Amino acid sequence: MKFATVRSDNRTLWGVIEDSALADLSALYPSLRDAVEADFAGVDEALADAPRIAFGAFSYLPVIPNPDKIICVGLNYENHRKETGRKEVAQPTIFSRFANSQLGHDEAIVMPKVSSDLDYEGELAIVIGKPGRYITREDAMSHIAGYACYNDGSLRDYQWHTHQFTPGKNFPATGAFGPYMMTPDELGPLAELTLSTRLNGEVMQQAQFKDMIFDLPDLIVYCSEFTELVPGDVIVTGTPGGVGAKRTPPLWMKPGDVVEIEIERLGTLRNTIIAE
Amino acid sequence: MKFATVRSDNRTLWGVIEDSALADLSALYPSLRDAVEADFAGVDEALADAPRIAFGAFSYLPVIPNPDKIICVGLNYENHRKETGRKEVAQPTIFSRFANSQLGHDEAIVMPKVSSDLDYEGELAIVIGKPGRYITREDAMSHIAGYACYNDGSLRDYQWHTHQFTPGKNFPATGAFGPYMMTPDELGPLAELTLSTRLNGEVMQQAQFKDMIFDLPDLIVYCSEFTELVPGDVIVTGTPGGVGAKRTPPLWMKPGDVVEIEIERLGTLRNTIIAE
Repeated sequence: MKFATVRSDNRTLWGVIEDSALADLSALYPSLRDAVEADFAGVDEALADAPRIAFGAFSYLPVIPNPDKIICVGLNYENHRKETGRKEVAQPTIFSRFANSQLGHDEAIVMPKVSSDLDYEGELAIVIGKPGRYITREDAMSHIAGYACYNDGSLRDYQWHTHQFTPGKNFPATGAFGPYMMTPDELGPLAELTLSTRLNGEVMQQAQFKDMIFDLPDLIVYCSEFTELVPGDVIVTGTPGGVGAKRTPPLWMKPGDVVEIEIERLGTLRNTIIAE
Repeated sequence: MKFATVRSDNRTLWGVIEDSALADLSALYPSLRDAVEADFAGVDEALADAPRIAFGAFSYLPVIPNPDKIICVGLNYENHRKETGRKEVAQPTIFSRFANSQLGHDEAIVMPKVSSDLDYEGELAIVIGKPGRYITREDAMSHIAGYACYNDGSLRDYQWHTHQFTPGKNFPATGAFGPYMMTPDELGPLAELTLSTRLNGEVMQQAQFKDMIFDLPDLIVYCSEFTELVPGDVIVTGTPGGVGAKRTPPLWMKPGDVVEIEIERLGTLRNTIIAE
């Protein structure tokens, strides 16, 4: 099943993405985050009578617009670690985003007036379903409510002002998240799926999830050691090699560009770039 | 004026701290964050008839329990930068906390079962009043609604697992914030005020705010470049030299210890340490 948060007629709604419409389930829970927290109880029963909103009559918002936490993983593919010159580490590299840095599918990524060093980072995002602290490796996958594409858009000069990444990772409308989340039963096994980032149609990054240095259970175990995970929390699992910053010369996204993050079987997140 | 968020009779309340009681203003706005957003409109008028809750009949919660953002500044005093061996930088070092890592005055800081490298960091926190992006230096101070003591409690091993600080700065019940926020008109000029951190009564850190590398306008200008500040946002402005981690041998806080952050004219934040 595919769940999305959308805007239609100036209302924020959520529901199930079908072949040509959104089945609006906003009457069941006020938000997708609430539905995740309720483990989607009642969704199957409510679907038949849910109002349908045709494609074209709504726009996408971030899958979860208001997560309690957005935990981002850096340097989680060997070819990206090597291109950045960072040393090997025994634990995941973790930073965070504020919710107001997110945007939805088909919304515009904003190149701010104070920087033009705007880079893409195609990533797999997981949405936490069950809450937990000190989650074990064995239980970890059962805490995932769904998967989505994420573009962890970065202003590299601000990211590298100091050794802490936070400023470059939090500009408004730089973290694209969507179009929807897909439940684990529908996505199936992840290891062999390919993630691709395309800029104006050209492939910039490509990897399979089995190439992750820290796999999904590793990430969930580690994050749940230092924080209590709650439903709707987002873990953005890292980007493979091929970022624009490490090309010669560096390749920055510019107004008018189209960036796509495609994950095999899951879908494609597409955004254009505009200047602030 | 001094504003606090408290717990009494299993209800979360907010109001004005007076000589021996809290004047409960929860009927005026649902939370202190909402009151900050409303620029405290109506507070003066509501005070006379507000119910009083005597000291002892309530416990303190974090001043703002649910901020949209908690932006933390690292390495903002020269003696702390030097003791960490970090190089000079032209912009502030920024990381962030999740709201669920906070605790109030007199609550217990929790040493988690996975680490005992628990360190104090006495700091001045500012609470943002007016929203803003690209705030100018001239306007910056007008965006501050209040000041509070903060203990940016850190698990140093998790902080140093990689070059990103986030894990060590986000353990539950490690970020003490309180007891209350004081409005700028009551606190007056900051430069000559002394911040002191005491562990079991012994002074561990001491500095005046004029010793900051990046002053409050610098911090507000920089943060508002990379994110939209909103009312209730918290900026934790950095800790001076003297942290436990850089002593020989390192000095960690342990269960039973009492840690106090005192800011002259503002007040004292006191917490005991317990083991998880």
